[in-house]
Amino acid sequence: MNAAARGFPRDEFESRCAHLQKIMAAYELDGLLVTAPPNFRYITGFDTEFWESPTRPWFVVIPADGLPVAIVPELGGPALSRTWIDDVRVWPAPRPEDDGVTLLTEALSALPKRFGRVGAELGREQVLRMPAIDLDRVRQNLAGTEIVDGSPVLWQARLVKSEAEIERIAHVCDLASVGFESLESKLTAGISVREACRRFRIDLLERGADAVPFMAAAAGPGGYDEIISAPGDRPIENGDILIIDTGATYDGYFCDFDRNFAFGGLDDSARRAHEIVWEATEAGIAAARPGATAADLWRAMNAVLEKGGAIGNNVGRLGHGLGLQLTEPPSNRPGDETKLVPGMVMTIEPGMEYAPGKMIVHEENLVIREGPAQLLTRRAPRAMWTV
Amino acid sequence: MNAAARGFPRDEFESRCAHLQKIMAAYELDGLLVTAPPNFRYITGFDTEFWESPTRPWFVVIPADGLPVAIVPELGGPALSRTWIDDVRVWPAPRPEDDGVTLLTEALSALPKRFGRVGAELGREQVLRMPAIDLDRVRQNLAGTEIVDGSPVLWQARLVKSEAEIERIAHVCDLASVGFESLESKLTAGISVREACRRFRIDLLERGADAVPFMAAAAGPGGYDEIISAPGDRPIENGDILIIDTGATYDGYFCDFDRNFAFGGLDDSARRAHEIVWEATEAGIAAARPGATAADLWRAMNAVLEKGGAIGNNVGRLGHGLGLQLTEPPSNRPGDETKLVPGMVMTIEPGMEYAPGKMIVHEENLVIREGPAQLLTRRAPRAMWTV
Repeated sequence: MNAAARGFPRDEFESRCAHLQKIMAAYELDGLLVTAPPNFRYITGFDTEFWESPTRPWFVVIPADGLPVAIVPELGGPALSRTWIDDVRVWPAPRPEDDGVTLLTEALSALPKRFGRVGAELGREQVLRMPAIDLDRVRQNLAGTEIVDGSPVLWQARLVKSEAEIERIAHVCDLASVGFESLESKLTAGISVREACRRFRIDLLERGADAVPFMAAAAGPGGYDEIISAPGDRPIENGDILIIDTGATYDGYFCDFDRNFAFGGLDDSARRAHEIVWEATEAGIAAARPGATAADLWRAMNAVLEKGGAIGNNVGRLGHGLGLQLTEPPSNRPGDETKLVPGMVMTIEPGMEYAPGKMIVHEENLVIREGPAQLLTRRAPRAMWTV
Repeated sequence: MNAAARGFPRDEFESRCAHLQKIMAAYELDGLLVTAPPNFRYITGFDTEFWESPTRPWFVVIPADGLPVAIVPELGGPALSRTWIDDVRVWPAPRPEDDGVTLLTEALSALPKRFGRVGAELGREQVLRMPAIDLDRVRQNLAGTEIVDGSPVLWQARLVKSEAEIERIAHVCDLASVGFESLESKLTAGISVREACRRFRIDLLERGADAVPFMAAAAGPGGYDEIISAPGDRPIENGDILIIDTGATYDGYFCDFDRNFAFGGLDDSARRAHEIVWEATEAGIAAARPGATAADLWRAMNAVLEKGGAIGNNVGRLGHGLGLQLTEPPSNRPGDETKLVPGMVMTIEPGMEYAPGKMIVHEENLVIREGPAQLLTRRAPRAMWTV
């Protein structure tokens, strides 16, 4: 499989920045403070797994006009200077008594004051990656500027993907699709869920995925009762259905989909449930067109699941956005009236509990296009793969 | 390599909880609120990579007396009910208008009020994994109880590892040590840094690591200018020194160490710098005894580096704690007067810039014991591995 491109040209970052600034203006913000890994990478392009160390905060400040400023621990200075960011300020970190607080306060104070409001990652599906008490210190030192929730700005900017972003997601979806297809022949009854996942994780890296930050798996007779735990040591037995769900990455972008494997065949109720969920996936894909809402996707899938006798689904939604994170807004659920527009990348994820403790969940990834959606994953077979 | 045990018996969690409660009493807290993955796992034992999805917050509340309460999204209910936690409360998530806020407020309100203070992950090296505006809503609804920084409680509890925890860290250190030793024969000039890292990542999984959340690498003539970036596509040439630093995990616990590889030999100045850093590591290991402080470790290593002509080191410290996270307090730096006690797991990480833009960094992992420390990594060779 040919690798997709890596990295983005300066004009992609400039247009991200201009887009953010346009949305910031609508939200009456003089600036936007960013601390979390996916937002930091979206704006700077900086690629690292050093986020695993919680010791040092990293900041980007986007002014209402002009270029972003990066304020980073000294050990990040050389790498940031190789990104498109021109203004990189560093402090000798760690320095618990002042880990960037003074520099950040200065940068925010220097923003031209029009609205007296700066946005930060304080709201929906965002995590502020700095000590909350340090943000309080910044707040106390900011005369006349309030720090407010900037999450809607970030999500609105990241909602629609560029063709360059879609190319990365398509690439990792393709890698993982072929990986799942080849996994069928590598599994045998008696293998543990953990070992099956270990093999798949290695296979994804061999195929060119950069990392596999998410893998969840479960197996049980005729289905499973949840889909989020790390794989366990239970050997898979005939009569079990194994689900593996994975989020592998390429150049920072995720796929997020699952596949089911029947060990030794399916009984009639499981076969019927699988078909209903497969049909619900079809309905979701067909409904994924510009002008429909995330709630419409839910309705299209849920109608099939309800008619098929679903007694529940603890996942709480039937798919979501996808990109620099495994899951992003919107959510395919009642009440999410986000309108689908071309360039949005979504998961179609119907699932149902068809008997107590027995769920079957499907998932595909697609991009909204003018007209029908473009599937990024290779569609799961109508009949479950059998081991 | 035989796998170490997985999971912990109920009494390990009970003793973690009792220890936390003892420290909470000293900090005058009626309860402790936990949201972040490593703390959540420390208390509940729950193993998942679902943290990659930012959509739903997860909570544990530890009362001053009695057992912890888990408040989790409905899709986490089945898995949490299989942990040692008896009291698991769920809500149908995602539900952006009330994602656990009401349930969390009820649980905190029900805590017996002695001090009127509840601790949360608001401070040093902690990240609150929930929307900050939702914590504000909880605060507004809590009559007479203040939410204060609980970070010191969490770090004090996690500082000293149990023998069961040390066993996991030792296991993953051993895996990665053998992996590094075998990597020498797998590298050749012309390979890209990214490809070298991909091979090593796969090798670590094949040897039994559960995941490799952290890998950073750099290569340059006679050294490198930083040690935290993801590997790039630059081919490694003769004259380069390649550093790979990795944090692989086993049963949730990290190793964190690096190794250097000389391509086509070292010039005299690089060889000398490598020896100085190797000697500084020896000094750090020798100084790592009960009663010394983290600052003492820094002083022991820094004396060797200064004498050797170091002109800088942008890492900002010479090692740190290690456990459920890649880096944990304390920091080996001036001013960190944390006293070393048996059971603390530390990295010894001297590094120096010996010429402008040319750094060499070493790292080993050890556990503090009565008397000399016990090395968990297999000591890097005195002469750099040569490819």
